[in-house]
Amino acid sequence: MAHIKLTNEQLPGIVGLLNYSPATAKPLLELANVLLREDNTLSRTEREIIAATVSYRNDCHFCHTSHAAAAVAYAGADVRMIDDIKAGLVETTVSPRLRALLNIALHVREGGKTVTEEDIRLARDNGATDKEIHDTVLIAAAFCMYNRYVDGLATWAPPNNEDYLEMGRNIAGHGYGYSLRQSAGNQ
Amino acid sequence: MAHIKLTNEQLPGIVGLLNYSPATAKPLLELANVLLREDNTLSRTEREIIAATVSYRNDCHFCHTSHAAAAVAYAGADVRMIDDIKAGLVETTVSPRLRALLNIALHVREGGKTVTEEDIRLARDNGATDKEIHDTVLIAAAFCMYNRYVDGLATWAPPNNEDYLEMGRNIAGHGYGYSLRQSAGNQ
Repeated sequence: MAHIKLTNEQLPGIVGLLNYSPATAKPLLELANVLLREDNTLSRTEREIIAATVSYRNDCHFCHTSHAAAAVAYAGADVRMIDDIKAGLVETTVSPRLRALLNIALHVREGGKTVTEEDIRLARDNGATDKEIHDTVLIAAAFCMYNRYVDGLATWAPPNNEDYLEMGRNIAGHGYGYSLRQSAGNQ
Repeated sequence: MAHIKLTNEQLPGIVGLLNYSPATAKPLLELANVLLREDNTLSRTEREIIAATVSYRNDCHFCHTSHAAAAVAYAGADVRMIDDIKAGLVETTVSPRLRALLNIALHVREGGKTVTEEDIRLARDNGATDKEIHDTVLIAAAFCMYNRYVDGLATWAPPNNEDYLEMGRNIAGHGYGYSLRQSAGNQ
């Protein structure tokens, strides 16, 4: 049970919190849509992989699995990709550029000052632009927020990878805020 | 020097990043204004103290000092309050409710799952409402993002507490986004 009394306790993870607090939901959803959905030289799959990897390392089951499921939907991949993201992308083919950006993202997760000149040089040497480095740092930083919001209030999360596939398809098809709008329509 | 080439390298801390990336600046500023400025049963001073305390413990000099300076401005306090926030509020009088909320905020900083039922009970026993607990968790989580954004891209920051007093007064008087709008006017 969540640490606070939510308005709709049926809604999992961050969805219940966004429903509880519409004033903060608006910028939180807009930030997710700008970072993960809008046009970018990093693909939507790549950005969801960054979000899911940081969330997994922050031990946030809801965020990891929902964003990994979004990556599955964008990539047209198999559900096993969710566990492969946890494993560090052993089976999934990813570019050296994305590997170098994930290295930056995981340093951001530890703390901003752990990002080194060498991390940045490695990303550039593999073709990353300044904008891509900027966006990677902000995606990683933003998930250090979303993860703490979801777990700091002890929201519930469906247990199995398969439980998130529909959510992933909805994110891929309609963007962030869709499940919230649907639940509002059902109230 | 920042890890990426910013559009205006004169602008310190997050101000340079918001100037570089207007699409993400919009929700980031809106989130700060909703959490720290809009009507709330936690005073603006209290909310800035939470933001500054989390930022200090995250070792983010720019965010700590600018938000502590905002608290100084709201409280009509002396510049020494900036160091007193670092020291854990030895000189500044704060309510038992704020002490209990700061305890939650510092657990959120470590990781969402470190917030315990006992932390929540202590806050409630000292008069905190569900909304105040929610807002405290999200302020702490949000500064885990802002801090990593600022330091993950190695932005520069003025060194001395006194350098931030005008920024604190501008935040108190005009809200977040003011210094950015001013710099845009000067370009």
